[in-house]
Amino acid sequence: MPFPPPTTHGLTTTDGPGPARSWTVATAKPVSYRVRFAPGVLDPRNPALAHAGLPEGESTPARRLLVVEEHVDLLYGDALRAYCEAARHASYSIHVLPAHERLKTMDSVYSVVDAMDRFGLDRRREPVVAVGGGVLLDIVGLACSLYRRSTPYVRVPTTLIGLVDAGVGAKTGVNFGGGKNRLGTYHPAVETLLDPAFLATLDERHIGNGLAEILKIALIKDRDLFDLLESSGERLLAGRFQTAGPLRTTAHHVLARAVHGMLEELHDNLWEHRLERVVDYGHTFSPTLEMRALPALLHGEAVNLDMALTTVIARGRGLMTDRQCTRVLDTMRALRLPVHHPLMEPELLGSALADTVRHRDGMQRLPLPVGIGDAVFVNDLTDREITGAAEKLARAAKEVRSHA
Amino acid sequence: MPFPPPTTHGLTTTDGPGPARSWTVATAKPVSYRVRFAPGVLDPRNPALAHAGLPEGESTPARRLLVVEEHVDLLYGDALRAYCEAARHASYSIHVLPAHERLKTMDSVYSVVDAMDRFGLDRRREPVVAVGGGVLLDIVGLACSLYRRSTPYVRVPTTLIGLVDAGVGAKTGVNFGGGKNRLGTYHPAVETLLDPAFLATLDERHIGNGLAEILKIALIKDRDLFDLLESSGERLLAGRFQTAGPLRTTAHHVLARAVHGMLEELHDNLWEHRLERVVDYGHTFSPTLEMRALPALLHGEAVNLDMALTTVIARGRGLMTDRQCTRVLDTMRALRLPVHHPLMEPELLGSALADTVRHRDGMQRLPLPVGIGDAVFVNDLTDREITGAAEKLARAAKEVRSHA
Repeated sequence: MPFPPPTTHGLTTTDGPGPARSWTVATAKPVSYRVRFAPGVLDPRNPALAHAGLPEGESTPARRLLVVEEHVDLLYGDALRAYCEAARHASYSIHVLPAHERLKTMDSVYSVVDAMDRFGLDRRREPVVAVGGGVLLDIVGLACSLYRRSTPYVRVPTTLIGLVDAGVGAKTGVNFGGGKNRLGTYHPAVETLLDPAFLATLDERHIGNGLAEILKIALIKDRDLFDLLESSGERLLAGRFQTAGPLRTTAHHVLARAVHGMLEELHDNLWEHRLERVVDYGHTFSPTLEMRALPALLHGEAVNLDMALTTVIARGRGLMTDRQCTRVLDTMRALRLPVHHPLMEPELLGSALADTVRHRDGMQRLPLPVGIGDAVFVNDLTDREITGAAEKLARAAKEVRSHA
Repeated sequence: MPFPPPTTHGLTTTDGPGPARSWTVATAKPVSYRVRFAPGVLDPRNPALAHAGLPEGESTPARRLLVVEEHVDLLYGDALRAYCEAARHASYSIHVLPAHERLKTMDSVYSVVDAMDRFGLDRRREPVVAVGGGVLLDIVGLACSLYRRSTPYVRVPTTLIGLVDAGVGAKTGVNFGGGKNRLGTYHPAVETLLDPAFLATLDERHIGNGLAEILKIALIKDRDLFDLLESSGERLLAGRFQTAGPLRTTAHHVLARAVHGMLEELHDNLWEHRLERVVDYGHTFSPTLEMRALPALLHGEAVNLDMALTTVIARGRGLMTDRQCTRVLDTMRALRLPVHHPLMEPELLGSALADTVRHRDGMQRLPLPVGIGDAVFVNDLTDREITGAAEKLARAAKEVRSHA
C-alpha cells in the first residue's frame, strides 16, 4: 500500500488499441469518529447515549442492541435497562458477555455476532452499543468490523484503560495462537462516550492498569501530564478519580490530556502507515510478557514493566538523568505498578523483541524516552543492554523487598 | 460514517477554556491496487509472480509464503515449485489448503493464520501469494486482513469466477451461522495476476460458474458483452477460453470487458458507501438460495437463478420485451446455467429478500435489468411478483423437461 496516498483517485488502464490489459484502482476510505465526555451517561435525562452513533438531528432509534460486560451488567445493568426504557426504544436487547484477557478470543467475537444475527441487525443504520472495559470494546469492535463487512458501533468505556486507550483509537482485536491481538482490524467506533463515574466501582489494580497508559503518554510527549501524575497520581488512584474539590479538576485534566495526547498521535496515522509511533512506547516487550504471564499481569502492568525496562535503558544511553529515571520509577511505584517481573529474563525479552520487529516491518523502531516528555526512535538496541537493564531492575526489586 | 467524506482532515476539538471535552477525528485511508493480465504466470522466464506485490524496482523477495488450493496444487504444484526455485527466493513455503463453499469458514482462515505465524511473516514487507479459486482468495484475503490488523497479499485466480469477480474487487469473507459471507472485510490484494491458461483444467460447470458473473456485468451495463456471450458463449464454454484462432480474441475481449466493467463499478465505491450497486444484480435472492442448497449450487449458479427470476420480473414490469427476456434465458441455457430450482418457493424467496434488505440499510435497492445492458433500482417489489415469476420459471422448466 503506497504512502503517501496517490494524489489522483480513480481507475486508470493501460493505453493502446484493443481491450485493456492492466488496471490500477486508487481511492481512499473516508473515516470520521467522535470521542467526547458525557458525564452522567446513564442518567435517563441525558440523551447522549440514546442518540449516540446516529446522524445529528435523527430521532431516538427504534431498536438498540447493547453488548455489556458481565461485571458491568451486575453493577449497572438495572440503570442501563431503566435508561433504555426511558429512551422509549420500540425494542432493545442487552447481550451480556464475560470479557477478560483470556476470553479475548474469536469465540467471544462469535458470541457477539450471534447476538447481532438474532437481533436481525440492519447493516448500517443500527449501531451496536458496547459497554465495558478495553477487552470488551476490542471484541465488540472486531465483531462489528467483520459483521457484513462493517457495522457501526458506539463505545462506552467503563474502565480507566478503556477511557484513555481502547475507547479512543481505531484498533480492534483478539488474541490468537498465543499472540497478543494477533487478529484484528482498524475500525473505530463512530462515537465514544466517556463517563469517569464508572471508575467509582473499579478496584485499585484496574485503576493502575489505566494509569500505566496515561503515564505512557506523559513520558513520551507531555511533561505537564507527568507532573500531575507525580504530584497527584497516588491520590487519584486512592480516590478512583471521584474525589470532590480541586482533585476533581486534576482528575479531569489528567483524563483529557491523556485522551488528547493519544488522539494527536493517532489521528493522522490511524492505519499505522508510519510504523514509528511514540504511542508504541511500552509495547515492545510487553505483548509477549503479557501473554506468557497470563492471567498474572494486566495489560497496563505489562506495559509498565516494558516502560520501566526502557527507562533504565534510556538512562544507560544518557537519554535521561539519574534523577529523571528515579522520578519515573518512583511514580510507577506510587501508582502501584510493577517495575520488575521474574519473566523478564534474556530469552523471553529477546523473543519478544524479535516478534515486535516482525510487527514493525523488520526494524526495531523502538521508542525510548528522552528526559521526561520526549522520545526518540532507535534501531540498535543490543541484547546486552536489555539484559543489563533487566538485571538492574531485578536488583532494585530485591532491595525494595529486603527493606520492606 | 459520513459520505461524501469530510473536506477537512485532522483532529478538531471543542473550543473554550480548560481542557477539551470533545474531539472529532476525520481522515481517509489511502488504498490502491493493481489488476493485470499476466499470461504464462508460471513460466520461470516471466518475472511477474516473483515480483508481485512489491514496490516497483524492488528485487525478488528473499522469502515467500504461498497459499495454494489443494486441487490447484495437484495440477500446478510442480510448476509452482519449479517457478519458486527459479526465482531464487532464499526460502519459500507453500501452504496447501482445501477450499470450497462448505470450507469457507473461520477454521480455514485460522489454517492460513497458523501458516503465517509458522513462517514468521513480516507485517508489511512480505505479501502472501494466494493461488486458487474465488473461495480460496476470499479466505486468504480475510486471513491477511486480520493478521496483525493488515498484511498485504497477491491474488492469482485459477478459476473463471476468480478471474472476473473474486480476484478483482476488495471483498474478503467466510460463511458463518448459515449466512453467506456473514463475516468479512474490504481488503483488496495489492496485485492480482490474471492468467486464463488456468482455465484449461477447469470442468465445464466451473466455467459456467464464472460465465454467470460475466453475464451479470453484460446484463446490467454492457450490451456488446451480452452479444459476445450470446454468439460465442457456448463455444467459449466448450473450449474453456483456450481455443486458438479468432475465438481466442473473443475470449480475451470477454474477460477484459468483464474485469473492466466490474472495476468501473467498484473503484469509486470500494467500501459500499453507496448501497445501490448494479453489481449486486443477481445477489438479492442468491445468498440464501446458495446457502440453503449447499453443496448443490455453485455461487454463479445461484446468481444465475436470481438473474433468471429478476429477468422474468423485469419483463412483467415492462422493463424488457418478451424477445429480450427470451434471449437472456436462452443464453443462460446455452451456458448450461440453471434457470429454476425447487428451492425457489415463496417462503425461501421472501426470507432471502428480508435478509438482503437488512444488508442494504432497510431498503430493497433491487437492481432490475432494463432491456439488455442497463439497470434500474426498485424498492417496491411485491411477494406476488416474486411468486409469479418463480412459477413461470417452474412451468418453463417442466416444459423443457417434457420436451427432452
